[in-house]
Amino acid sequence: MSLDKLFNPKSIAIVGASSEEGKIGNVIAKNILELGYGGEVYLVNPKYAEIFGKKCYKSLGEIPTSSAGMIDLAILAIPAKFVNQEILNNSKNIKNYVVISAGFSEIGEEGKKQEEELKKITKENGLNILGPNCLGFIIPSLKLNASFAGGMPEAGNIAFVSQSGALAVAIMDAAKKEGTKFSSIVSVGNKMQISETEMLEFLGQDENTKVIGMYLEGIKEGGKFIEIAGKIAKIKPIVILKAGKNEKTQKAISSHTGALAGNDEIVSAVFEKSGIIRANNLEEFFALLNFISFSNTVPNQKVAVITNAGGAGVLVSDAFSGKKIKLADLENETKNKLREFLPAESSVENPIDLLGDARADRYKKALKIISSAPEIGSVICLLTPQEQTPVAEIAKEIIKFKDKTDKNIVTVFLGGEKVEKAITKLKQNEVCNFSFPDLAVTAIDSYSQWNEFGVVKTKTQTQLINEKRRAKVLEIIAKAKSENRQALYFGESAEVMAMYEINTVESFEIENYHGRNLGYPVVLKVDSDKVLHKTDKNGVILNIENEMNLSRAVSQIKTNFPESHLIIQPMAKKGAELIIGIKKDEIFGPVIVYGLGGIYAEFLKTVDYLVPPLSLAQMEKTLLSGKIKFLFQGARGQKKYNVEEMVKILMGISSFALEIPEIREFDINPLIVYNNSQEAVAVDVKIMI
Amino acid sequence: MSLDKLFNPKSIAIVGASSEEGKIGNVIAKNILELGYGGEVYLVNPKYAEIFGKKCYKSLGEIPTSSAGMIDLAILAIPAKFVNQEILNNSKNIKNYVVISAGFSEIGEEGKKQEEELKKITKENGLNILGPNCLGFIIPSLKLNASFAGGMPEAGNIAFVSQSGALAVAIMDAAKKEGTKFSSIVSVGNKMQISETEMLEFLGQDENTKVIGMYLEGIKEGGKFIEIAGKIAKIKPIVILKAGKNEKTQKAISSHTGALAGNDEIVSAVFEKSGIIRANNLEEFFALLNFISFSNTVPNQKVAVITNAGGAGVLVSDAFSGKKIKLADLENETKNKLREFLPAESSVENPIDLLGDARADRYKKALKIISSAPEIGSVICLLTPQEQTPVAEIAKEIIKFKDKTDKNIVTVFLGGEKVEKAITKLKQNEVCNFSFPDLAVTAIDSYSQWNEFGVVKTKTQTQLINEKRRAKVLEIIAKAKSENRQALYFGESAEVMAMYEINTVESFEIENYHGRNLGYPVVLKVDSDKVLHKTDKNGVILNIENEMNLSRAVSQIKTNFPESHLIIQPMAKKGAELIIGIKKDEIFGPVIVYGLGGIYAEFLKTVDYLVPPLSLAQMEKTLLSGKIKFLFQGARGQKKYNVEEMVKILMGISSFALEIPEIREFDINPLIVYNNSQEAVAVDVKIMI
Repeated sequence: MSLDKLFNPKSIAIVGASSEEGKIGNVIAKNILELGYGGEVYLVNPKYAEIFGKKCYKSLGEIPTSSAGMIDLAILAIPAKFVNQEILNNSKNIKNYVVISAGFSEIGEEGKKQEEELKKITKENGLNILGPNCLGFIIPSLKLNASFAGGMPEAGNIAFVSQSGALAVAIMDAAKKEGTKFSSIVSVGNKMQISETEMLEFLGQDENTKVIGMYLEGIKEGGKFIEIAGKIAKIKPIVILKAGKNEKTQKAISSHTGALAGNDEIVSAVFEKSGIIRANNLEEFFALLNFISFSNTVPNQKVAVITNAGGAGVLVSDAFSGKKIKLADLENETKNKLREFLPAESSVENPIDLLGDARADRYKKALKIISSAPEIGSVICLLTPQEQTPVAEIAKEIIKFKDKTDKNIVTVFLGGEKVEKAITKLKQNEVCNFSFPDLAVTAIDSYSQWNEFGVVKTKTQTQLINEKRRAKVLEIIAKAKSENRQALYFGESAEVMAMYEINTVESFEIENYHGRNLGYPVVLKVDSDKVLHKTDKNGVILNIENEMNLSRAVSQIKTNFPESHLIIQPMAKKGAELIIGIKKDEIFGPVIVYGLGGIYAEFLKTVDYLVPPLSLAQMEKTLLSGKIKFLFQGARGQKKYNVEEMVKILMGISSFALEIPEIREFDINPLIVYNNSQEAVAVDVKIMI
Repeated sequence: MSLDKLFNPKSIAIVGASSEEGKIGNVIAKNILELGYGGEVYLVNPKYAEIFGKKCYKSLGEIPTSSAGMIDLAILAIPAKFVNQEILNNSKNIKNYVVISAGFSEIGEEGKKQEEELKKITKENGLNILGPNCLGFIIPSLKLNASFAGGMPEAGNIAFVSQSGALAVAIMDAAKKEGTKFSSIVSVGNKMQISETEMLEFLGQDENTKVIGMYLEGIKEGGKFIEIAGKIAKIKPIVILKAGKNEKTQKAISSHTGALAGNDEIVSAVFEKSGIIRANNLEEFFALLNFISFSNTVPNQKVAVITNAGGAGVLVSDAFSGKKIKLADLENETKNKLREFLPAESSVENPIDLLGDARADRYKKALKIISSAPEIGSVICLLTPQEQTPVAEIAKEIIKFKDKTDKNIVTVFLGGEKVEKAITKLKQNEVCNFSFPDLAVTAIDSYSQWNEFGVVKTKTQTQLINEKRRAKVLEIIAKAKSENRQALYFGESAEVMAMYEINTVESFEIENYHGRNLGYPVVLKVDSDKVLHKTDKNGVILNIENEMNLSRAVSQIKTNFPESHLIIQPMAKKGAELIIGIKKDEIFGPVIVYGLGGIYAEFLKTVDYLVPPLSLAQMEKTLLSGKIKFLFQGARGQKKYNVEEMVKILMGISSFALEIPEIREFDINPLIVYNNSQEAVAVDVKIMI
């Protein structure tokens, strides 16, 4: 159901309103009544006849029908045990609720039961419920503070959704100081019904919102999240600060909100696939939101830096290390124009050094030249407050520039008292100032990457299920199961892989080998669901050079694994060894893991995640920006590996993962790829059923 | 010569003092005369008879001898062209100078010549000269501002040395706001004579300095720097913000100060070897200095976090990812004590969640318990300003705790106006507050690593040169040179390696091979200084299986390389392939590069740098914390490689590098190491002469 009335209500009832200082119901009532909200407000509390000189009703039901028909939103700040009944009683007339009350799933089993019940009520009656266990929400443009956090932030274009109420309070307080302006602040609490996904859907359509910022500890319903986020991220930037980077945090999250934090690398892969900008920490999150909020345009990758201090310029230049954005190479025309008015000791290379004695005119002229330089997309304007630096005047020039240009401009005014007022002025005029150079570079870099996502802004990919193929695979699985096996034989796996156009190494069961000639050397392997780590357990003999050695190997392996199936394969030619697996993620379903194989694979951590489905273009882009991209770039002394072939293989594995969710575990280890015309080959395939 | 009189002068002459507003000589004179400096001050300027009602001398020489004998320091703010003569004229009587004047090596050839001349004067007359082209210096405890930056920072224990005057100005201004206190601020300008090394030597002995912070663009005299820094870092922490992380920056640095920025990875290796804490950016630099300045003790690796917001606690916990410090595992005793007074919904796991309604007493009690918990070394105290949070009272409790404890405590008070006053109070009481969680964790982590350096605080390593061995090697080199070769033959290299106890693969010149039997397979190689990338040029035939194939291979290679020396080697058994090389660094001399070999080596970037000499203990520590440490840890399914063997090899290479600086290039590629009892073997050794 649409959330329009919840977040833009013409009338609100506050259940649990109180005149008692310090009570949550008191804070909320005052926030709604005293901060300028223009709609109707009804107070409900059986203990009072009147609060703040306003009539107080005994219950929601007691509000006269003529009015009650008009209640768009009820806010509940009453003990948890009364919540469900109160909502059920009014579910015919009132469709939108904010449940502030704590005491639901976050407190354990009993609370969980109550939350389940409330969820049922919500579903059966077509309600919208924010919370429970939340701070409420604030819509500054309506002067509506429907929360128990104090104050009214400035109205602007940032929507902030927080899974932590306390963090929202701290950010609101910091925002006041920073000049950050919001379209809405929403605390989602336990996310019983309205979670990040519903909020994305709503805020994506909200005209007042330019950028959506979220603090999340967990993500609910991964599939739906990916679908909606992917759509909304094409319309406007989404910045998420996702907690849970390490195991301790994941544990803390689950004990604190009961949320499933998820595998952090997969979360990153999902964000990248969906076009979500991930903030690495709170400082970056805040910086990014402010920057996007004030930006003139989505930045490209070319940045100019102007500075009145060489040392500060150097530090900005260092901050570009490892970033995708670059210091723009200035055109000769630009440099010549700069040289015309700058002293000889200035640098007209980027960073452009205006020197310590630069007054406002130098900044002004330099900015003017930049404004007509097509090789520059954004400007970072540095200033250190030297004795002779007219800080306020320079700020004025920057503000004037910002109003006239379609380029982005941000400032880094380093210092304390001497730059404070100018910074305030800049912010009032929507010029984003960063306290330190690195933050400025990071913010521009992250936002420009959102722009880059645009390159593959194809329609959201859906994967067609090939039912016929699926049936065939299930048949093979059924047969194995009927034989009480937990894994497919290599021959069966090869048959399955062939359906997904993945080439496997030639292979013969030992019984059928006589008379064949693979040519030596060959490999002898145990093929059994009981012997999964074959190499560790001496279930593989490599490099068998002739028939005699083969017979010897067969009898050796038969002694060690008397019951097992044996297969013979040719030694695969040397190439790059890769591994590909499918991981079942609790939140996002099947995820493809791929990377370099070999004995050091786990230490070198050259593994990336892919969340299917992906289009061919997305797959290629992901491969070419991932950890094994170097294989496809053909650097020094190495021929390129064929990226199309790898895309084809990963597309096949994606189809397989989505089509056959019955698979418990899957990996190819190794897949050998070649940089000559030879086809890639899966040497070992493990399909656990 | 001792810098005591320069930085603690009883009398100062200001040459170029001026009454004209805006002139540098005016600012300096006012700074020295008006900010409380207690020594004698003489003003010098031929243009004036009197400045600020004080007598003005025509020249330094004119100051009456009775007084002139007492001039400890002369500050020169006169045009560059007069500087050398002025100093030369007075070099008998005045030994310490600050040359503010610009126009020396930073402006090009002419300036360089003048600086060279000044350097000569300095040396010949035993002078100390700070600058030229510098801002001057400030010693707050003496109320001495001998610079043209305004104001007087608070006196404290941070010494700040800056290669950028402008940055020093900005940091001073920011410091005022942050409550940062300094023992000294020194701008080293062109570092003609007094560079980072001389400053380290001086500040290391300065009783008022607890921590030395430096902003550097280049490092002069690498060897001496390593020696002195290594000594001083054992006494007190040195934090350096070293610019030049990427090529663009390195270029900007050299055009801006003429300094050689150096290879950034080698700079990091030098810092690590010397026990210097490297700040990654300006924000971290500032945070670290503040933290160390206020810290009660050097932190160990165990940290507790207390918070009144679960979400904020989670973000701190995330900040520990990739750090060496850890969230302490709380003892049951500690947890039980916490449980006694905390509400049931609190978390007594670390981060300890005191809940949103926590008042000062909860913070107080939790801190008390922490103070007697031996498993905790440092505390990060988080606060978000909820409606019911008594921010000021909690700050008071933290201040009380800090005074009583020997543990470190830092705060992260998140928010704006609501926490501002409390933060000021905290800082006034020397509790370090960080605006964001990540900075707090980074600061504690970096400082605790300095503590860890202590583990290998053996005496500074010096490498003995084995003159006899050196002579033998030089003889081999001389022979090769006499034959007009630029590289040694493999046999010669093997002989050299043997002197450094490095095992090379058995090898025979083709002429001497008849009658030998290495056993097949063997390798045939061209051994020539003309064919350096043998594999690329088909100068190697691997895996030769029998005599017939060998003859065929020989004739094939002879056709391609008719003039070349050929050698035969057995195929080395499979093991881990490493590479080891020597790189000649412009600043630090010979540096050892080592890491994983193989075809992907350059992409996987598993290479580390070592700056010899290192002690055995340091070498082992470096290996075990470097990128190939996993080889020596023996993780899943892999036997450990022998770290002592690798230490021995690297020690050998270090000796070789230091003993034979004549070598132009050196590498072993591959060195094959084994995780069974087999000895490591260098399969190819390239010694370019």
